Amino acid sequence: MSIRVGILGYGNLGRGVESAIAQNPDMELAAVFTRRGPESVTVRTAGVKVLHADELEHMQDDIDVLILCGGSATDLPVQTPHYASLYNVVDSFDTHAKIPEHFAATDETARKGGKVAVISCGWDPGMFSLNRLYANCVLPEGRDYTFWGRGVSQGHSDAVRRIEGVKDCRQYTIPVQSAVESVRKGENPELTTRQKHTRECFVVAEEGADLARIEQEIKTMPNYFADYDTTVHFITEEEMKQNHSGLPHGGCVIRTGVSGLNREHGHVIEYSLKLDSNPEFTASVIAAYARAAVRMNQEGQTGCKTVFDIAPAYLSPKSGEELRAHLL
Amino acid sequence: MSIRVGILGYGNLGRGVESAIAQNPDMELAAVFTRRGPESVTVRTAGVKVLHADELEHMQDDIDVLILCGGSATDLPVQTPHYASLYNVVDSFDTHAKIPEHFAATDETARKGGKVAVISCGWDPGMFSLNRLYANCVLPEGRDYTFWGRGVSQGHSDAVRRIEGVKDCRQYTIPVQSAVESVRKGENPELTTRQKHTRECFVVAEEGADLARIEQEIKTMPNYFADYDTTVHFITEEEMKQNHSGLPHGGCVIRTGVSGLNREHGHVIEYSLKLDSNPEFTASVIAAYARAAVRMNQEGQTGCKTVFDIAPAYLSPKSGEELRAHLL
Repeated sequence: MSIRVGILGYGNLGRGVESAIAQNPDMELAAVFTRRGPESVTVRTAGVKVLHADELEHMQDDIDVLILCGGSATDLPVQTPHYASLYNVVDSFDTHAKIPEHFAATDETARKGGKVAVISCGWDPGMFSLNRLYANCVLPEGRDYTFWGRGVSQGHSDAVRRIEGVKDCRQYTIPVQSAVESVRKGENPELTTRQKHTRECFVVAEEGADLARIEQEIKTMPNYFADYDTTVHFITEEEMKQNHSGLPHGGCVIRTGVSGLNREHGHVIEYSLKLDSNPEFTASVIAAYARAAVRMNQEGQTGCKTVFDIAPAYLSPKSGEELRAHLL
Repeated sequence: MSIRVGILGYGNLGRGVESAIAQNPDMELAAVFTRRGPESVTVRTAGVKVLHADELEHMQDDIDVLILCGGSATDLPVQTPHYASLYNVVDSFDTHAKIPEHFAATDETARKGGKVAVISCGWDPGMFSLNRLYANCVLPEGRDYTFWGRGVSQGHSDAVRRIEGVKDCRQYTIPVQSAVESVRKGENPELTTRQKHTRECFVVAEEGADLARIEQEIKTMPNYFADYDTTVHFITEEEMKQNHSGLPHGGCVIRTGVSGLNREHGHVIEYSLKLDSNPEFTASVIAAYARAAVRMNQEGQTGCKTVFDIAPAYLSPKSGEELRAHLL
C-alpha cells in the first residue's frame, strides 16, 4: 500500500512536494490542506481534494504523513508541535537559533501522540548539515567552509522590496570563486563575510524613483548588505519576468583536514549542489524523509528526529539487499 | 571511559587506524594483533602491546571494538564472521560481488554473539556509497556517475609488477576532465570505460629488460588496461622513491536528476574527495564507524550493518543537543 501524504500549505514548497510525490511511485498525494478558503486553491494533480486545515483534526485514518509547508517565522513553531501529536510530520524549519526549542516542543507532542516528526529537513539545514556531520566525524581535526549560491535569496529580495520606490527585486548570493578555489586547494584561508560572498540585486523601480538613493539604501542596509560587496542593476518589469523568474540555488560544504601521526597528510571533502529550483529540490529531500518518518513509526519509533538521527536506508523504497547489491 | 580499540593487521590500513585513534580523544588503542611473530612488529604508539592473533580468543574484557585490517581476497571472508562472534568489529571489505554473502555470514555470527559488525567501511565502499544512496533517494529520476582519481590503484600497480622484467610500478587512475565537466553541466553523457578514465604507469624495469615488450604487455592486459588509454613511463628506482612514494587518491560521485511536474528543472549533486593518503582516510572513516558500532551495541543492537544502516549521529562523540546546535 502506498504512503498517503498530506500537504499543509500550497505555496512554492507545497507545489514542490506535490511534484516530488509524483516521482515516487510508492507515494500518493492524499489531500492538500489550506488555511485559506479551499475553493481559492487549485491543485495541479488530478483528483486531489483541497480541504480546510481544520479537517486535519479528524483525518488520521487517511494520512500516513503530513508535510508542513509553512514558514519558519510564525507558521511552523505552532504547526509542527501541534500536528506532530496527530500525524507523522516533516517540516523545513530553518531558524537556526530556535532549533533547540522547536525540537523540544515537537519531541514532547510527537512522543505523546506516538508519532515521528522530522524537523529542519531540506538542503540547508538538511543535506548540507549531514555532510558537515559526516566530514567532521571522519576528519576530527580540520576546518569547515560553507558557500551558498549562485542563487536567489528570498529574504534578501524581500528586504529590498521594502525600500521606498522599489516595485520588485531579485537578489542573487554569489560565492567568491577565488575563495572557493583557495579552500579547495587546502590553503585553509581565514575569510571575512565580504571575502566569501558577493550580492547582486536586480531591481524594478517605480516610475520617477530616485535610483541613486535606492542603490545607496540597499548597499548600506545592515545585516543584509552592508558587510558585502553588492552590485545593483535597475531593470524593467519585462526583463525581470523574462530573465529572473526562476528560483535557482546551490552551494557547497567543504571540510579540509589532516591525518597521520604527524598530521602530515591533507584531505579535502566537498559536497556541492547546483539546483534549478530551490523549492523543488527542498521538497524532494522532504519527500524522502517523509518515507523515513512513516517507516520508523511503523517500527514503533516516536519523537522528534533530524537528518542526523535517521539511518540512510530508511529514505529508500528499496530493500537492504537491493541497496547493498547496487549502491554499496 | 574511552573506547578501547584493537587492530588486527598492521599494514598501511592498520597504521592508518592507529593514527586515526590518536585524533579521537574518546578512543584508545588497546593492542595490535598480528598473525606473524609479535616480536617482528613495532608499533609507533608508545606503550601499546603487540600480541599474537590467537590471544583474541580470550580478550573480550579488554577490547570494545576490533578493527580488521586484512585484505578482502582471503583475510576478511574468514576473519570478519569469526571475530564478529566475539567482538564488535569493523572491516573494509570491498569485493562488491561478494558483499551479499559476506553480509549474511557476518550477520549470523554477530547476532549469535550479541555484537555489532560494520562491513565495507571506508570511502568506496563507504562514503561514496552513502552519497549514491542519499542522491538516489532525493532525485529518484536521474543518473549516477562515479569517477576515481587522480590516485594510486594498488591492484593495477600489482598487476604490472607481475610482468617479466618489471621491478616496481606505480599506477595512477585519472578521470577524464572533459567527461567530468560534461557530467557537472548536466549533459548526461553516455560514457564508455575509455571515456571516463585514463591510466598512467610509472615503471622501474630490470636492467636490460625489453621496454617495448613491457609497454605492450601493460597496454594490452585484459580487464586492467586493454579498455583504457594508458601511458607508460620508465623511471629509475630513485625517481620512484622520490616522486611516487605516497598513496594519494580521491574521486567524485555525481548524480544528475530532474524535478517538477514536467521534469522541467535539473539538479546536480556532487560529492568529491581529494586525499593525500588513501589508507589513512579509509582508516579515519573506519574509526568513526567503530565508535558507532560500540554505541549501537551498548543500546542493545546486534548483527551486521553497513553505512546505510547507521544513523549519522552515532559517528560523532558529541551529544544530539550539541550536533543540532552547531552542525544542523
